Amino acid sequence: RSGEMAKLTQLIDNEVFRAYATYATIVLLKMMLMSLITAYFRISRKAFVNPEDTASFGKGESAKKYLRTDPDVERVRRGHMNDLENIVPLLGIGLLYALSGPELSTALLHFRIFTGARIVHTFAYLIPLPQPSRVLSWAVGYAVTISMAYKVLKTTLYL
Amino acid sequence: RSGEMAKLTQLIDNEVFRAYATYATIVLLKMMLMSLITAYFRISRKAFVNPEDTASFGKGESAKKYLRTDPDVERVRRGHMNDLENIVPLLGIGLLYALSGPELSTALLHFRIFTGARIVHTFAYLIPLPQPSRVLSWAVGYAVTISMAYKVLKTTLYL
Amino acid sequence: RSGEMAKLTQLIDNEVFRAYATYATIVLLKMMLMSLITAYFRISRKAFVNPEDTASFGKGESAKKYLRTDPDVERVRRGHMNDLENIVPLLGIGLLYALSGPELSTALLHFRIFTGARIVHTFAYLIPLPQPSRVLSWAVGYAVTISMAYKVLKTTLYL
Repeated sequence: RSGEMAKLTQLIDNEVFRAYATYATIVLLKMMLMSLITAYFRISRKAFVNPEDTASFGKGESAKKYLRTDPDVERVRRGHMNDLENIVPLLGIGLLYALSGPELSTALLHFRIFTGARIVHTFAYLIPLPQPSRVLSWAVGYAVTISMAYKVLKTTLYL
Repeated sequence: RSGEMAKLTQLIDNEVFRAYATYATIVLLKMMLMSLITAYFRISRKAFVNPEDTASFGKGESAKKYLRTDPDVERVRRGHMNDLENIVPLLGIGLLYALSGPELSTALLHFRIFTGARIVHTFAYLIPLPQPSRVLSWAVGYAVTISMAYKVLKTTLYL
Repeated sequence: RSGEMAKLTQLIDNEVFRAYATYATIVLLKMMLMSLITAYFRISRKAFVNPEDTASFGKGESAKKYLRTDPDVERVRRGHMNDLENIVPLLGIGLLYALSGPELSTALLHFRIFTGARIVHTFAYLIPLPQPSRVLSWAVGYAVTISMAYKVLKTTLYL
């Protein structure tokens, strides 16, 4: 089976594919970080949603008061949701784009701008920065994804 | 490195893989459209969720009244969420299905029905059409995904 | 085109890739099951969110009372959302990990633990089991994903 492994290794050795792997992983790790930030705010603000999560605060009314929404928790959750909505398209379209044979420099430009835009978006959402910083960083990531989708469809179109 | 690039090009030249790339991209672009529709309704209905988004409407109470939920905005968001819940499985299972060596005509049938069902689902949700149009279009996409998952597991099962 | 098909077949014949395909499909099917459980609770608890879904219960006030949230429905939906937040990273990072040439036994360990942790997480959320069962099962899946991301970045890093 060494022949097959060689082929797989060659896929991961391709520079465009390596760039995709690197940036896709970074942007997914950034998204995963939102779970930890949500947990941090839930614990520090004492704002939970499941009764079993407040059991350690005692029983009855004393624990029930921690079953509440908190503006900071909800803000992180909206940022997390926005990540999902935008990173899922990037994952799929970016993989197909990486396989569609783009120039390495063009591909790097797409991946770097998308990743940078999503990091700026996270800061813009969590601090929060005044608008239009959040909407602009969202739009940049969106436009980069559209640009990759155009290349994929131009290369592969098979309806 | 031309040998590696050739191999990648060959992957994207495979007709089943090209069909997957085309339909996965179309269905992801359709999902991304939901963000724009949400933005359109938020602006036209003046219904926002982040205080910084209403800053341009003035300060204090005059801006605060636009921090509210709107039924049309919430409807689009539910459609977007349903897309995420159903298109994420399609992305993963569809890719593995495309690599599992299906007949081209069978694969095209799966991809076309899934994509059509999700487009009908979007119209059924947003207009909205009377039930059972939404639940049926959802079920068709769901069943197509299960059918592809069955083929993947039959081909690859390695526990 | 038989040469190309052979190459695709070889990819799916690689044991690590087959293991990824199997476990990714299982974990996606498990996530899709959440839709059915949500539908089951919506119908049995008569708790709907779209007016067109309650039309069969009659018109006006008699149907309107079924437009309400139900704690069991909301619990399943939170479990579904947690799946999305954690299975999307697994899909992307797991695919890249499978292509990064890990040892078969190490890869199997990662995929099995992740899948097991997400199944335990679902039971812990839906029954619900007392904490820390839910948070621990979540953390195990999270740690396995981080471990795979580390391997991907170590193998492919190309910034």
